[in-house]
Amino acid sequence: MAIIECVPNVSEGRRPDVVAAIVDATRRVPGARLLDFSSDRSHNRSVITMAGDAAPLESAVLALFEAALATIDLRRHTGEHPRLGAVDVVPFVPIEGVTMDECVALAKDTAAAVAERFRLPVYLYEEASSNPARKNLEDIRRGEFEGLAAKMATRGWAPDYGPSLPHPSAGATVIGARMPLIAYNINLATDRIDIAKKIAAAIRCSSGGLPYVKAMGVTLADRGIVQVSMNLTNYEQTPMHRVFEAVRREAERYGVQVLESEIVGLVPAAALVGPAECMLQLENFNRSQVLETRLRESDGTTKVTKNTK
Amino acid sequence: MAIIECVPNVSEGRRPDVVAAIVDATRRVPGARLLDFSSDRSHNRSVITMAGDAAPLESAVLALFEAALATIDLRRHTGEHPRLGAVDVVPFVPIEGVTMDECVALAKDTAAAVAERFRLPVYLYEEASSNPARKNLEDIRRGEFEGLAAKMATRGWAPDYGPSLPHPSAGATVIGARMPLIAYNINLATDRIDIAKKIAAAIRCSSGGLPYVKAMGVTLADRGIVQVSMNLTNYEQTPMHRVFEAVRREAERYGVQVLESEIVGLVPAAALVGPAECMLQLENFNRSQVLETRLRESDGTTKVTKNTK
Repeated sequence: MAIIECVPNVSEGRRPDVVAAIVDATRRVPGARLLDFSSDRSHNRSVITMAGDAAPLESAVLALFEAALATIDLRRHTGEHPRLGAVDVVPFVPIEGVTMDECVALAKDTAAAVAERFRLPVYLYEEASSNPARKNLEDIRRGEFEGLAAKMATRGWAPDYGPSLPHPSAGATVIGARMPLIAYNINLATDRIDIAKKIAAAIRCSSGGLPYVKAMGVTLADRGIVQVSMNLTNYEQTPMHRVFEAVRREAERYGVQVLESEIVGLVPAAALVGPAECMLQLENFNRSQVLETRLRESDGTTKVTKNTK
Repeated sequence: MAIIECVPNVSEGRRPDVVAAIVDATRRVPGARLLDFSSDRSHNRSVITMAGDAAPLESAVLALFEAALATIDLRRHTGEHPRLGAVDVVPFVPIEGVTMDECVALAKDTAAAVAERFRLPVYLYEEASSNPARKNLEDIRRGEFEGLAAKMATRGWAPDYGPSLPHPSAGATVIGARMPLIAYNINLATDRIDIAKKIAAAIRCSSGGLPYVKAMGVTLADRGIVQVSMNLTNYEQTPMHRVFEAVRREAERYGVQVLESEIVGLVPAAALVGPAECMLQLENFNRSQVLETRLRESDGTTKVTKNTK
């Protein structure tokens, strides 16, 4: 069985009953497992995490759109987080036993079904993107719901699926496929925000640092320390331990120690293999040596190894 | 679903057709997945690794005994590895969604069934042991097949199940429950076997080192280096990174570097979390943050987290 993760972001984070109804709609689909959901009042936005095989996930996403479009009206929505639609973005993420190409196909199928059923414009993004200028979510979302009608009238911004005008209350939606995103923060033994900001600038991709790293410096006022807060968008290309080491070395320049790091939310098991290999100077380790991976891969094929213990 | 690992060791490693027939017997049981098998000619012994839920594993073990007892006669068996029976030892190992107590219960059920069906004496060992003097496999196996009749006549050595005399061709069997065993080796940048032996002595439990570590120094003649070859018998109590650090520090005393380490065979995913946490100075990490673990644990219960990203 394939494991695909799907993380719809909906533009409602203040009415718990509305969020609960949207989440419940996805839970009625057998085979789509709800892993987590969280709401942010100031963002006025909720993030739902589910996983399963392609078909049940597509059904769950359609059920989520139905519930969200019935209860969210972007004409009355305010919040700190930029957004384009009632269901703002729906990424499909390959976790195990599935390729990125299969997730791209699933994203396109789902996008076509959403556009058709709800008369909603849909843009494809990241790996599913039809166009380099529309790969990045921030670029697609620029102008937000309020600027959407004007943007859609602009050359190059016809949606990938659905009508060429915004949905009156639900705007448009962005659907795509991407690698797992890891929310990873490193806390520093200092209260100097300038140092956290300098380290963030040094290590993030956008200012010449490590690929697949987004970073900013923030203050944790309650603890009197600062943090390099990051999103890692491809742990295979830029593994967590390389990011950790880069931050640690930059901090050293300022005589600052790393206090600790934290992973916020979920992380694929495979993302922890790299750091473990580094710690143990492990050579020739193959992921199919992980017992649970071997178990999922096992199809009854026998395999003789040289190890006897 | 519970994931239990079962690793029967059979006293045949030189006749591939016999080994194949024994392995095939287990593969005919639906729900018992064969993960690996390996034979060692000099040991004249094969190790079969399978996994699944309790009921199919018990069936697969019974099928394995039937095939092994039909083809292996210990009266004609020679090999470097000590052994007591045609099926020498059968450990059940909790991997996920199952407690050690449940594995102990499974070991006792299986032991009773094996004793009854095959008229074979069975000793329980490790966590399933009925008696502190019979916890350790080496103690039970001491005297081997050739000394078994005399040993069984000795006070305190009546088997836990089955007849009080050895099976004529199959001897006796040891069945039990234990933590996963990790075969972990650390290679040193030296050819001095005395240093590998000194490090092994310093870190192994039996000579006052780390708990749950068995270690010996060996020469890798083809590479001109030495190795600290280890079995780690409880990665929760003595995690891999602590073992690695202990070996590294001991090697430093002799001016020797660690070249690399290797895991031989399978390792539970959970055993890699500790080293990753250490590498990343990760705090407050919970194993249910691992996406695959969350997915297996998810029973439709919703859980609200504070994270929004």
